[in-house]
Amino acid sequence: MNKIRVTVWNEYRHERSNEEVKQVYPHGIHHCLAEFLGKEQDFEVRTATLDDDEHGLSQQVLDDTDVLLWWGHKAHDEVSDEIVDRVHARILNGMGFVPLHSAHYAKITRKLMGTSSFLKWRVGDDHERLWVVRPNHPITAGIGEYIELEREEMYGEFFDVPEMAELLFISWFKGGEVCRSGFTFRRGLGNVFYFRPGHETFPTYYNEQVQRVIVNGIRWAAPVHAVPPIQGKVEPLE
Amino acid sequence: MNKIRVTVWNEYRHERSNEEVKQVYPHGIHHCLAEFLGKEQDFEVRTATLDDDEHGLSQQVLDDTDVLLWWGHKAHDEVSDEIVDRVHARILNGMGFVPLHSAHYAKITRKLMGTSSFLKWRVGDDHERLWVVRPNHPITAGIGEYIELEREEMYGEFFDVPEMAELLFISWFKGGEVCRSGFTFRRGLGNVFYFRPGHETFPTYYNEQVQRVIVNGIRWAAPVHAVPPIQGKVEPLE
Amino acid sequence: MNKIRVTVWNEYRHERSNEEVKQVYPHGIHHCLAEFLGKEQDFEVRTATLDDDEHGLSQQVLDDTDVLLWWGHKAHDEVSDEIVDRVHARILNGMGFVPLHSAHYAKITRKLMGTSSFLKWRVGDDHERLWVVRPNHPITAGIGEYIELEREEMYGEFFDVPEMAELLFISWFKGGEVCRSGFTFRRGLGNVFYFRPGHETFPTYYNEQVQRVIVNGIRWAAPVHAVPPIQGKVEPLE
Amino acid sequence: MNKIRVTVWNEYRHERSNEEVKQVYPHGIHHCLAEFLGKEQDFEVRTATLDDDEHGLSQQVLDDTDVLLWWGHKAHDEVSDEIVDRVHARILNGMGFVPLHSAHYAKITRKLMGTSSFLKWRVGDDHERLWVVRPNHPITAGIGEYIELEREEMYGEFFDVPEMAELLFISWFKGGEVCRSGFTFRRGLGNVFYFRPGHETFPTYYNEQVQRVIVNGIRWAAPVHAVPPIQGKVEPLE
Repeated sequence: MNKIRVTVWNEYRHERSNEEVKQVYPHGIHHCLAEFLGKEQDFEVRTATLDDDEHGLSQQVLDDTDVLLWWGHKAHDEVSDEIVDRVHARILNGMGFVPLHSAHYAKITRKLMGTSSFLKWRVGDDHERLWVVRPNHPITAGIGEYIELEREEMYGEFFDVPEMAELLFISWFKGGEVCRSGFTFRRGLGNVFYFRPGHETFPTYYNEQVQRVIVNGIRWAAPVHAVPPIQGKVEPLE
Repeated sequence: MNKIRVTVWNEYRHERSNEEVKQVYPHGIHHCLAEFLGKEQDFEVRTATLDDDEHGLSQQVLDDTDVLLWWGHKAHDEVSDEIVDRVHARILNGMGFVPLHSAHYAKITRKLMGTSSFLKWRVGDDHERLWVVRPNHPITAGIGEYIELEREEMYGEFFDVPEMAELLFISWFKGGEVCRSGFTFRRGLGNVFYFRPGHETFPTYYNEQVQRVIVNGIRWAAPVHAVPPIQGKVEPLE
Repeated sequence: MNKIRVTVWNEYRHERSNEEVKQVYPHGIHHCLAEFLGKEQDFEVRTATLDDDEHGLSQQVLDDTDVLLWWGHKAHDEVSDEIVDRVHARILNGMGFVPLHSAHYAKITRKLMGTSSFLKWRVGDDHERLWVVRPNHPITAGIGEYIELEREEMYGEFFDVPEMAELLFISWFKGGEVCRSGFTFRRGLGNVFYFRPGHETFPTYYNEQVQRVIVNGIRWAAPVHAVPPIQGKVEPLE
Repeated sequence: MNKIRVTVWNEYRHERSNEEVKQVYPHGIHHCLAEFLGKEQDFEVRTATLDDDEHGLSQQVLDDTDVLLWWGHKAHDEVSDEIVDRVHARILNGMGFVPLHSAHYAKITRKLMGTSSFLKWRVGDDHERLWVVRPNHPITAGIGEYIELEREEMYGEFFDVPEMAELLFISWFKGGEVCRSGFTFRRGLGNVFYFRPGHETFPTYYNEQVQRVIVNGIRWAAPVHAVPPIQGKVEPLE
């Protein structure tokens, strides 16, 4: 069996500059993600970060990646346009893409969405429930009715996202808001799954249900099959 | 200008048998709905109820209706299958349909949806916020960010509804739930808009924002134009 | 590995009464379908026909079925309503459903769709090309750009189908028509895939690409996981 | 009644450099479009072209535009990124956008779609039929079953377009291809309608049905109502 080659990309700035975040993710969010993903026998996991050469995303790395995870927040602008274009081309060519939390506003996610990616938010801790609104989907497998997170940052509507194939999760926040928190769409040959939770000051990525969703999401986003090159200019049927 | 011919259908049982409901809607929910709809200059409004002859829905009445509103709850089973089929045929033929609240489980709504229409619920009073998730839609015009209802019955996910063209509202409930509370879909030539609020013991249909959504929904659901008869068996292009 | 339990349902009337059809499918369309499906190592295949007791669809058979294929044409009306309701309930409960060709008008398909299922048609032979409009989908895996069928019955637009999750194939017909010929939707916990080709007088189900699509469609429609029972009435948080 | 302020943007190069095109559109495609649009009493029409100062799309012009039409083909690259960003921001803020024909590959369309916008094509003349697959939509009002164009350029599938709210037209081409030729989607507060026909060497925009679709599309895409400013950071419900 061919393994699914996963690359976990992380901005990796908060964890080095903010003591509170360092407490939660001492080796960086990418390390936490890679650790639980590495336990899946069909995954082959590597990491890359903003401050790596070419942000860790050389053409070779992308060519060898089936699914790319993305976590970024305060340095979206420092991601080079050239590498954003490279990642975009690779997604259109079939690589799966799973932006997490504040990566809704990453250059690459906005380029895929075509919208402003604007949303409502509240820094602070807010009780969240992620309700499953599509229980028979591969990404929600094993989750039950909802995921409960005692403390998370709030993201709320209106969340400017594009038409989507499937809405999977809707969040409830104690403070009075809702959010379309998990959904899929397609661009070119690439599958995209956005998943909301994961503020850097909370231990969200240690939550087993959240981990399960991300694992499911990677399996769902992986290319199902090689697509033969598509022909542009063609001759008519005679 | 041709007026939009609106028929408001109501089960009209709770209001006659339950004192609490009678207090809120002394002349029936249909009367309350017809009253505010009647103020719109482009609407021509009539009502019909379960206990009328043919439930008030003769072929003539349906032929003369552009948009049918439906409120029902405890007597879904008493609606005759023959009339359900008649209403269904008329919707496929272009009549708009706006099921309200517990009409999600009306025979006609289930026949249109093809699903179980199952949902989670809690009788009692629950603080509800209906968040607009599509602000530039004709149905959400003039609503702002959300509608706040101090007391409503809770409906929650998983709500078994079909693929839809447009999700317009998501409800937040203080008790911890969310619900896809306003959405549109199409069947045949008919437009359908489901809108959640309206438990019989609360004065929801006196709320001006709720009224505005229903008015907008009727204008949206009205047939936009006559569709010429569609041909079945055809000859090939030679 | 648990096998996918497939039940192939066929009306099985044309093949017994019409010499032309008997030539193409001497043992019935169900037999042809079961034969190539039976070669898949992860499938366990059985057949059922209209004239079997309970149409071959006892509650036990349905409970033991993961995906149900359906071919019917001239005797839709002879399928009992009770069994249609039974199949519908089982689909809502998670069984996959794959209606083929004229099964677009089967009682069960119309009950799922909620539309008229009306379409345009021309009996006769028409050159058809089924273009893939979603190349990275599991159901189109291995198909390339299109499937070419030298002779098929024409089905054309307007085809009255509901909002759908995914449009996979669009047919071109030499006579001048197009048709949405392969698409998926969901009802309750059940996945549905409609696939157009398969007129009884043409050897369509011997075509290897058509076979591949049906095999892919079954794997796609199979329930991905057990969904725990969903609670209706609930208590509020805190 | 407030008029719908329409701006017709045209690359306007083919018409000045190619005799064949000049024959068909002596004053430019924008002039032809503006002429029939100008007959609608509720439209106020202006034009803009690539070689105008700021491509004719100053901030003031965009602020005064409700719906922007776009025709471009051989000089997509000459449109400045700054103006593309300006147009994009205005669409997200509510301006309707109607890209025509080869504008599927305009920078602004690709920025909205997030896909490659790749398609199959054949220069030459091909008989086209645009089948209506959603007869009760405002954009298809008055069109009947299809539009027939004796001569057009072929565009075919796979056409890399994003998930969409509504598929309205599917083209049939005599040479053996199909194309999703008319569809709508939404980005931010802006409505987008793509419509395929309009190769520069054929008199497509003189066709009355094509004109009707474009007129309908503009009315559909116009902002339905002012959306109040949406708040980002918010306080919780206490």
